[in-house]
Amino acid sequence: MKRQVYLAMKPLEEARELFLSSIDLDGLAGVETVKAAGSSGRITAEPVFAKRSAPSFHSSAMDGIAVRAEQTYGTTDRHPTTLKAEKDFVWVNTGQPLPKGFDSVIMVEKLHQLGDDRLEIRSPSHPWQNVRKVGEDIVATQLLFPQNHRIRPYDIGALISGGVFSVKVWKRPEVAVIPTGSELVCHEDLGETEQLENHQIIEYNSRVIAGLIQEAGGIPIVYDIVPDIEDQIRAALKRAVESEASAVLINAGSSAGSKDYTVHVIKEMGEVLVHGVAMMPGKPTILGIVNGKPVVGNPGYPVSAALSFDQFVKPLLHMLQGQRPPERKTIKVWPTRDIPSKLGTEEFLRVNIGRVGSKYVATPLGRAAGSITTLTKAEGIIRIPALSEGITQNEEVKAELLVNERDLENTVVIMGSHDITIDILADEIRRTGRDIRVSSGNVGSLGGLIAHKKGTCHISGSHLLDTETGEYNLSYIRKYLKGIPVSVFNLVLRDQGLIVAKGNPKGVRGIEDLAGGNLTFVNRQAGSGTRVLFDCKLDQMGISPESILGYDHDEFTHMAVAVDVLSGAADCGMGIFAAARALDLDFIPIEREQYDLVIPSAMLDEPAIQAVLETIRSEHFRERVLSLGGYDPAKSGNLWKQVGESAGGNA
Amino acid sequence: MKRQVYLAMKPLEEARELFLSSIDLDGLAGVETVKAAGSSGRITAEPVFAKRSAPSFHSSAMDGIAVRAEQTYGTTDRHPTTLKAEKDFVWVNTGQPLPKGFDSVIMVEKLHQLGDDRLEIRSPSHPWQNVRKVGEDIVATQLLFPQNHRIRPYDIGALISGGVFSVKVWKRPEVAVIPTGSELVCHEDLGETEQLENHQIIEYNSRVIAGLIQEAGGIPIVYDIVPDIEDQIRAALKRAVESEASAVLINAGSSAGSKDYTVHVIKEMGEVLVHGVAMMPGKPTILGIVNGKPVVGNPGYPVSAALSFDQFVKPLLHMLQGQRPPERKTIKVWPTRDIPSKLGTEEFLRVNIGRVGSKYVATPLGRAAGSITTLTKAEGIIRIPALSEGITQNEEVKAELLVNERDLENTVVIMGSHDITIDILADEIRRTGRDIRVSSGNVGSLGGLIAHKKGTCHISGSHLLDTETGEYNLSYIRKYLKGIPVSVFNLVLRDQGLIVAKGNPKGVRGIEDLAGGNLTFVNRQAGSGTRVLFDCKLDQMGISPESILGYDHDEFTHMAVAVDVLSGAADCGMGIFAAARALDLDFIPIEREQYDLVIPSAMLDEPAIQAVLETIRSEHFRERVLSLGGYDPAKSGNLWKQVGESAGGNA
Repeated sequence: MKRQVYLAMKPLEEARELFLSSIDLDGLAGVETVKAAGSSGRITAEPVFAKRSAPSFHSSAMDGIAVRAEQTYGTTDRHPTTLKAEKDFVWVNTGQPLPKGFDSVIMVEKLHQLGDDRLEIRSPSHPWQNVRKVGEDIVATQLLFPQNHRIRPYDIGALISGGVFSVKVWKRPEVAVIPTGSELVCHEDLGETEQLENHQIIEYNSRVIAGLIQEAGGIPIVYDIVPDIEDQIRAALKRAVESEASAVLINAGSSAGSKDYTVHVIKEMGEVLVHGVAMMPGKPTILGIVNGKPVVGNPGYPVSAALSFDQFVKPLLHMLQGQRPPERKTIKVWPTRDIPSKLGTEEFLRVNIGRVGSKYVATPLGRAAGSITTLTKAEGIIRIPALSEGITQNEEVKAELLVNERDLENTVVIMGSHDITIDILADEIRRTGRDIRVSSGNVGSLGGLIAHKKGTCHISGSHLLDTETGEYNLSYIRKYLKGIPVSVFNLVLRDQGLIVAKGNPKGVRGIEDLAGGNLTFVNRQAGSGTRVLFDCKLDQMGISPESILGYDHDEFTHMAVAVDVLSGAADCGMGIFAAARALDLDFIPIEREQYDLVIPSAMLDEPAIQAVLETIRSEHFRERVLSLGGYDPAKSGNLWKQVGESAGGNA
Repeated sequence: MKRQVYLAMKPLEEARELFLSSIDLDGLAGVETVKAAGSSGRITAEPVFAKRSAPSFHSSAMDGIAVRAEQTYGTTDRHPTTLKAEKDFVWVNTGQPLPKGFDSVIMVEKLHQLGDDRLEIRSPSHPWQNVRKVGEDIVATQLLFPQNHRIRPYDIGALISGGVFSVKVWKRPEVAVIPTGSELVCHEDLGETEQLENHQIIEYNSRVIAGLIQEAGGIPIVYDIVPDIEDQIRAALKRAVESEASAVLINAGSSAGSKDYTVHVIKEMGEVLVHGVAMMPGKPTILGIVNGKPVVGNPGYPVSAALSFDQFVKPLLHMLQGQRPPERKTIKVWPTRDIPSKLGTEEFLRVNIGRVGSKYVATPLGRAAGSITTLTKAEGIIRIPALSEGITQNEEVKAELLVNERDLENTVVIMGSHDITIDILADEIRRTGRDIRVSSGNVGSLGGLIAHKKGTCHISGSHLLDTETGEYNLSYIRKYLKGIPVSVFNLVLRDQGLIVAKGNPKGVRGIEDLAGGNLTFVNRQAGSGTRVLFDCKLDQMGISPESILGYDHDEFTHMAVAVDVLSGAADCGMGIFAAARALDLDFIPIEREQYDLVIPSAMLDEPAIQAVLETIRSEHFRERVLSLGGYDPAKSGNLWKQVGESAGGNA
């Protein structure tokens, strides 16, 4: 079996430097002539000089009358001057030529009509007053734009006005994108919900990369999927390097797996400059040159593919158009927890970012490179340097923004227990035209309360049952949020129960069946409300955790529990009805519980918080929640309790 | 003669509010379905829910072997476990399905090959280690994106992966753009240098507006030019409001001139909401509704048209796509001089901005609304509120940026005398791939020196002759820049002389012919090097300024002087050869003078300054300067003198 090892991994900067300096940019960059009128966004490939002057004749800059200035000298309020039409003045509109023999314009607002053909003025005019002279704006031969200038809509005006009707710009570089993988299927050959054959994967990296190429001003040429057959990969690469393309991107086949032919083929046809970059995600990147053209073998995982593109192909495409690559805006953020990272590798950590009080807080998303949603849900990326072992919550770090800075100002950070109605809330706020984003982190109910303590969220979602009082959340808030007055609003009432496979093949009746080892269970993490509820039920029923197979198998969301049941990793797990329904599983109700939003009372007046409350009180929100099943929105938005000093009476 | 007056002018905010609130957005906004793969940049018109889960099967997250975790328990360095191929393990690559019966993956780096079919491991594995479980990234039914979300390239991955192959997005709103004006000619019907018939004007506003519409996500439909004939304007508007277009923009005919039919026609066919907005440029804007569609009559001057678009049509287009209009980034700047402004009108002042030392400085460009280059050359816009009479150089003000903030960091601000070789310098720096912009302000040689004193420029351009010593610049620097050590480098030597009409019809021989009133002269402003030279020559020749017709007629640039000669506003003027040549005028040489760059010595090490010096010393720069004629680059880039304390010996 053919297996490979990486060539010595190169640090990111070194790899990029080696790659970009090995490319003959002048040879690859092309120039084309485009119409000025359609040139917005293109980049000049040579300096642009005016061919005409503008204006091309003296014209009136105002609506009014053209006069001879000399004739107005000495005019005052006390000694007005009377002018006769045609002889002493001529009516002119803005932009009209100055009639021959006249040298000045008086605006209409300063005229006093005496009769049909006579006017009075009460102040003098001076030569060339309110006149636009020839060449005042543009003089033929002047430099309009230097080369490597990105043409903006306004610039089109200067071009056409200056007689430049077509302009030489850098060609948009073509990039051949070759998706490889025998397991891949093109989504265009597939119905949206058509069942995949066993183990097929829908290919989408090429489409993400195509979008990124376009964003960088290039033209993507996406090839058909090539199976993992060395000859076919070779043939596709040959076709690509012999095409018009300025660069070739092979995705994927760049790691050290047994069927990764890319590096062989590049080496055989040209040169491999780098195989393996000390970045994560993105490590298995290949950088090479074939036929004088840069060839990038980028990793198969979607996040790796996208981040590798950012680091190598994006700068290349900008340089081919005479531009430096744009830098992402960065801001300083406070991590919500310590995040260790591997020494020797630069990590690109995707994070949710929101502004809470006066600081930006960043909550890490999952680190799996296979999870595209860790990129789509992220507001930013924290780059942890290769020489660092991680970052701590005790110091600010820099984050590159993936959204507009303005979006962060309008982001409501909700931490705590996960519930599907938070997604509904996020969408409903947007539906009503508000420019507010919801960023939610799933850290369990207790984690959400602690986030208030740390000041890292606006709202926490909580459904912690006090087994002694039967009340939800209040005793936990009193214990964990001492000194922070909060208001507790109901979000929904919802059904918790056992999620089991479709048709309940194991005949599960309730929690009582879990003991004894005939059923495998999947649990929720400690600190989650669901775990508290489950443990409470076990206690009430006198069942010991040790008797339950899989009690130690933790998941962090209802959906993850449902997925485990769907996939057979467990026979059942505790979760909400909506999760079971989403995956078409069966559900055995155990409890109708209360899911609340906890909000520091000091934040209640903030417009974004008010928007959240208005939204969850709206009829539209209730209807959508009801339609999910397993939810009761009867109390949604009701103030349940105020806890803490400012509302001592209730506490 | 039909003349109009403005309806009562409305403040900008009030006009916009009235306009946008009068429009039935829901009625005008449209929804369409596009392919997910091509949806980048579009905006979701409804929430997007996943139709598939991803991954759709358990798969290996690593290259390595699939094992049964149970079988590895107890493994340590001292007690390694040996595994047999096929029986105990199966090779798997990243992304491959987990073979049935296996529940864990050990990465290839942790394996020790014992033979062809035997491996040793030295640590245990746990269940689901390095396994991507079904639905780990996306669970069918989950919310992928809320409505009104702008789809980014990454998002395409989540869409396709989640089984969403097409997506409902807001239609790009069509905008009908109707250029009107009998004097207008379409540039497409014209050769680039083809002579215009008398008083024709090349129409380009519609092309600028088309670019702005595209930038705002809309689709421009540019109509043929309509002459100033009421019936034809009516017919064009009728066609536009009955078309697919969501909005109509008529350019121009919106001021109070006699042939401005737009407001009549809108009133007749619908409703005029606003006629006249208290903004400058942009005052003669009409906002109306015809057939339920917004109709904007925007002003004819290009800067007015563009700024009016920004304030009214741009927000409309964004709202039709579920978005707030993007706000321009603003920074705080120091004006380089006091700028009075008209009370009651909000002024949009175009400014050059550069970073000098620790502050951003802003130099106003011309205020003429007819000059598109005041917009294309601007780095920013200072909005002077209606209730202000202007801004002063003693306080920071906010400026909206028209360029990237990063561009400002790399801008070299050159103030002082105008010379065409500064344009060449600006272009040469870009040609060599440096991302450095040159922002130049024409304030005369003395104005440039004073800018150093104020700290508002990096470099000044100066050619001030000391009539006593015959030396250039040094005595002025000693007088005006006390305490600021500067280095003086030669930019060029250049020919100054009298610019006269082609063929020298008046037979001008030299300055001696100016006295006596037979010739009209155009002068340069006081403080300019050319004025100093001219006055010196008059003095030497014993000619009194009073004897010269037009001595008081000032212009600020060589080109403006040449334009006056070309247009017949003057018979001759003092200027450089290059200006005469640019406009094909004749030239009578008077003096070869020295044009220097003055740079504070403390700034010499800055990379941008070094880049300037390298550029003017380059062969390519010299060649381009030589080809202009009237220049001698023999000393370009030579250090001529260091003046001031740090170089006392030379001062």
